[in-house]
Amino acid sequence: MLPSAQIRDAVMAQKPDVGALFDALRAGSRDGDGITRDTYGAGEQFAHKLISAQADAMGLETRRDHAANLFMTLAGKDRSTPRLMTGSHLDSVANGGNFDGAAGVVAGLVAIKTLQRLGRQPDCDITSVAIRAEESVWFQVSYIGSRAAFGVLPAGALEARRVDTGRTLGEHMAECGADIDAVQRGVASLDAKSIKSFVELHIEQAPQLVEAGIPVAIGTGVPGNFRYPQVKIIGEYAHVGLPRRFRRDAVLAASDLAVGLDDIWKKNEAAGRPMAFTIGRFHTNPKEHALTKVAGEMTLSLDVRAYDKAHLSELEGTVLNLAREIGQRRGVQFELGARTAADVAPSHPAVATKLDAAAKALGVATMPLASPASHDTATFTVAGVPSAMLFVRNANGSHNPREAMDIDDFLQGAAVLTGWLAAEAIS
Amino acid sequence: MLPSAQIRDAVMAQKPDVGALFDALRAGSRDGDGITRDTYGAGEQFAHKLISAQADAMGLETRRDHAANLFMTLAGKDRSTPRLMTGSHLDSVANGGNFDGAAGVVAGLVAIKTLQRLGRQPDCDITSVAIRAEESVWFQVSYIGSRAAFGVLPAGALEARRVDTGRTLGEHMAECGADIDAVQRGVASLDAKSIKSFVELHIEQAPQLVEAGIPVAIGTGVPGNFRYPQVKIIGEYAHVGLPRRFRRDAVLAASDLAVGLDDIWKKNEAAGRPMAFTIGRFHTNPKEHALTKVAGEMTLSLDVRAYDKAHLSELEGTVLNLAREIGQRRGVQFELGARTAADVAPSHPAVATKLDAAAKALGVATMPLASPASHDTATFTVAGVPSAMLFVRNANGSHNPREAMDIDDFLQGAAVLTGWLAAEAIS
Repeated sequence: MLPSAQIRDAVMAQKPDVGALFDALRAGSRDGDGITRDTYGAGEQFAHKLISAQADAMGLETRRDHAANLFMTLAGKDRSTPRLMTGSHLDSVANGGNFDGAAGVVAGLVAIKTLQRLGRQPDCDITSVAIRAEESVWFQVSYIGSRAAFGVLPAGALEARRVDTGRTLGEHMAECGADIDAVQRGVASLDAKSIKSFVELHIEQAPQLVEAGIPVAIGTGVPGNFRYPQVKIIGEYAHVGLPRRFRRDAVLAASDLAVGLDDIWKKNEAAGRPMAFTIGRFHTNPKEHALTKVAGEMTLSLDVRAYDKAHLSELEGTVLNLAREIGQRRGVQFELGARTAADVAPSHPAVATKLDAAAKALGVATMPLASPASHDTATFTVAGVPSAMLFVRNANGSHNPREAMDIDDFLQGAAVLTGWLAAEAIS
Repeated sequence: MLPSAQIRDAVMAQKPDVGALFDALRAGSRDGDGITRDTYGAGEQFAHKLISAQADAMGLETRRDHAANLFMTLAGKDRSTPRLMTGSHLDSVANGGNFDGAAGVVAGLVAIKTLQRLGRQPDCDITSVAIRAEESVWFQVSYIGSRAAFGVLPAGALEARRVDTGRTLGEHMAECGADIDAVQRGVASLDAKSIKSFVELHIEQAPQLVEAGIPVAIGTGVPGNFRYPQVKIIGEYAHVGLPRRFRRDAVLAASDLAVGLDDIWKKNEAAGRPMAFTIGRFHTNPKEHALTKVAGEMTLSLDVRAYDKAHLSELEGTVLNLAREIGQRRGVQFELGARTAADVAPSHPAVATKLDAAAKALGVATMPLASPASHDTATFTVAGVPSAMLFVRNANGSHNPREAMDIDDFLQGAAVLTGWLAAEAIS
């Protein structure tokens, strides 16, 4: 056991170093007013090199797996016993913020450094992992790095093309030092049985902690989702002079879908059934659309998420029925295109309880929080690793340059993470 | 007076020539499965040269004005008396059909050739005009050619940029032989007092004549419109994890607008108040949008039309109120951008009555038809020229490669036009 006061002081003492590390991450991936750390590209590579150098300076063992994930390990007394893991991803969306992902990797290093400063070797190995390719905007594939680590990334994913470069995931991975053959064969670098527990710290992507005036939350689970990244609605292009009854207007059909989904969300929310839907891309065809032409085609992306498997499956039925009804009413065809899905991943109750105990011991105020966003933690949960998450207060959402995480809040989260590791591994 | 039977026979005898002329127009402007005759560009130029050569072969006087409109005149006995005019435009939308516009210019030549064949010189000049730049998709400016002819094109329009080339209307016009200084000074090549009447023949842009089983319609008027070609809705980009109550989703705001306008249309239609709205362009920002990002920006074009000035003005108020209400409810800003408008132009009752009489004398079945589309006829009407339109049956709408005008229907329309000219000018 380590006294909570010592943990807190040793974590807080790292404030200048933590600020400098975040600044260095920002400086190397700056893009306009935000940052870009593109998945399996120059931005993510930069961050991996910087964090790896930091781990080297701390004297940690570093290992890169076949998907170029980076494992940074503080050796325990018994190296054969299941280890504790923490970490997050280092990539970002284009023109995103500096903390989404990186905060969890840095928190892992802060926790390990705290144990080092206090001169206590843990009973088991403690690993902080920098996961690759969590941001699905680039290849429209979820959890690439973490699923490859567990050997469960579908081989077909390697053919996915990055939305900006048009080149395949396989090509991009190979350039970053991954072993594509091993990814394709479903080789695993992580084994659920050898991991005692996993905790990921992440900034909150909504202002709920700001509203509540609380710095840190303990996640209740990661939602499952289904996605149709490239839905096409095919109506008929027509002259602006076409009367209403003859029109097969793709813009109106798409608008009916968006407004209908919003209504479904409102009703679910009122019934206490949390969910979310997002139409991020929504557009007529720039080669065909015109001021005086009824639109014959719309393209849209759809992401729907919920916290319960049965609820998610019910929602998918509702969405498909809605599309069918609109198709008939507006005389248009819905071409749904590819579908991807991710399982619901509730936090492990024992891990959440231990995080709560660590926070109480440290005097850090927390609240439970359902994350509406996806996180690599879901891959660990689905693989059978007892897992949970910590969220740090952040005013302006993430995936944008205005992320506003206070370093003091971050250090409170990192202290909870350290307290948990210490309670689990310092005898 | 010319006997109706002679008119009909002389018009119908031109069927092979008319087919060959439409084929030549199509061959020179083919674009995929349709045609492109770009406004003040290569496609429109080609059509003007072909039609001009046709007029030369017929021995007509040809004249190009300062906006490069083409006037083809059969001299009358008294050249100083107000003339009769017919014609339409030769440009098309991108990948459009062969008949939208061109049919009216060809019909003018068919009518003049009929009078020539029957050996009868008219009492006044008869001019068929090939108008420039009717399709507002290219420069997002209405009635460029006809308004320049009457000296009422706003000088600022010369700065409008073509959506594909990015170059100004002034540059494009100069390349086609127009006198930009004269356009800028508001010089007029047409004087309403010197035109007795104007009739434009055009294909119908909807299948109402097909539904009714009638080949030709007499237009009751051209609607007025107001347009906001580049509306921006500014919300806030956010992570897909942002709960509903915090979102400022531009996609949902835009969808509310589209669905709200559709509802307004439905209600107006039910109340017997004809109108139309079209959102032809409707899109998230391709540089920013992503599968897992709440959309912070939408761009859309809006065209609203009606047949009554007070109704149109009432509709504009309704639309602006709707935008305001949505803006407040969704937490987004509507930036309406530039506004253009065109006056309502009802057909001249006397001209419509004369067209009706000509059709009856020829045994051509007609019906009255409100055109929901814009036409250069509106410019003539607004300038004070007694004007009306003839529409020819067409199954598949216009502004697309599937325009389906039967040449026999076209010739019936051309016969009505000829009958009207003969009744007015052959003593």
